[in-house]
Amino acid sequence: MHIMESAKFKELDDRAYNTFLNSLSGAKPAFLIGSGMGDDENVAIFNSITHLGANPPLLGFVQRPTSVERHTYQNILKYGYYSFNLISGDMYQKGHQTSARYAKGRSEFKEVGLTALYRSDINCPFVEESPLHIALELFDDIKIKSNNTHLIIGKVLSVSKVELKNEKPTDLDFESLNGVNVSGLSDYYSVEKLSSLAYAKDK
Amino acid sequence: MHIMESAKFKELDDRAYNTFLNSLSGAKPAFLIGSGMGDDENVAIFNSITHLGANPPLLGFVQRPTSVERHTYQNILKYGYYSFNLISGDMYQKGHQTSARYAKGRSEFKEVGLTALYRSDINCPFVEESPLHIALELFDDIKIKSNNTHLIIGKVLSVSKVELKNEKPTDLDFESLNGVNVSGLSDYYSVEKLSSLAYAKDK
Repeated sequence: MHIMESAKFKELDDRAYNTFLNSLSGAKPAFLIGSGMGDDENVAIFNSITHLGANPPLLGFVQRPTSVERHTYQNILKYGYYSFNLISGDMYQKGHQTSARYAKGRSEFKEVGLTALYRSDINCPFVEESPLHIALELFDDIKIKSNNTHLIIGKVLSVSKVELKNEKPTDLDFESLNGVNVSGLSDYYSVEKLSSLAYAKDK
Repeated sequence: MHIMESAKFKELDDRAYNTFLNSLSGAKPAFLIGSGMGDDENVAIFNSITHLGANPPLLGFVQRPTSVERHTYQNILKYGYYSFNLISGDMYQKGHQTSARYAKGRSEFKEVGLTALYRSDINCPFVEESPLHIALELFDDIKIKSNNTHLIIGKVLSVSKVELKNEKPTDLDFESLNGVNVSGLSDYYSVEKLSSLAYAKDK
């Protein structure tokens, strides 16, 4: 094993340091967050979606410091609703392109070539090309004082999945869904199912 | 698309409901958290490791409610140090088995057949069989009032990686590392590199 103490990290240049730190947590599922409507319409890539609990059904994500303009965060506070849309292998290059800095008033959907899908019952867009849509209502916004990031907590309102043969709506096989994962800021991975293991018991 | 409203989730039995909710966030990197020493020695599987920031270098994970005994959480508070160890395809069955409920005083290392590795400078075990070790010092413990989970924040002290040909210590390719991901409570996946995309710019 090659051991690298944190004092050594600082010998990296800024971009290499940020990429290294971002990649430590592994290749994580890539989602597009859809938020806002009209001139506020926005879609942006995130890989920090985390299960927080089942009762009530809560999912969190990490919002970087809001000292600069954050369109996703502003929209979530303004509209109260947002969507998580799994990025698939068919459109991850477009998903990645949403990380470019577009001025407010320009929709990333149009800029990168993805389709905004609206439902009559919720004030946020979904990504039509995505195989898995999760609709959320803002539940809590926890400021992490350590570094001014936020943990944004949403309550799951509905889950939509493409119809796949031999699968129930609640079966989520991420290989069948063609979901992609991302590590660091730009390394993309596909996933391949190894196996489903039985519930572990003390032997 | 098949749309399922949250009211419908409750028609699932308890285990199916929990598995479905846990799987929504995708196939996430599987890590073993090593904590404690001597009779407190513990290792347990988690898939909620999240990047929180680079300055200082912080990683978080979600600890379920501490209303019942949580050995990992108790050890982190007692010793102040812990380790994240990436689970590889060579030992994910052993990693999964750590999720069984073992009484305090029994080390999961011995029970599942993994090797505890200690360093002289930090009071927690690492998993020798793991290709990536991250040493952390407890930095903050944020209670999430919505459901009594905790976001445990650690400061990265060091990163150890197996030596791989043509890779620098800071290059983390999760396919080369043979890292595995887990969705729900028991679905395991391998990851395969698709590509590294360039930094996205407004065109």
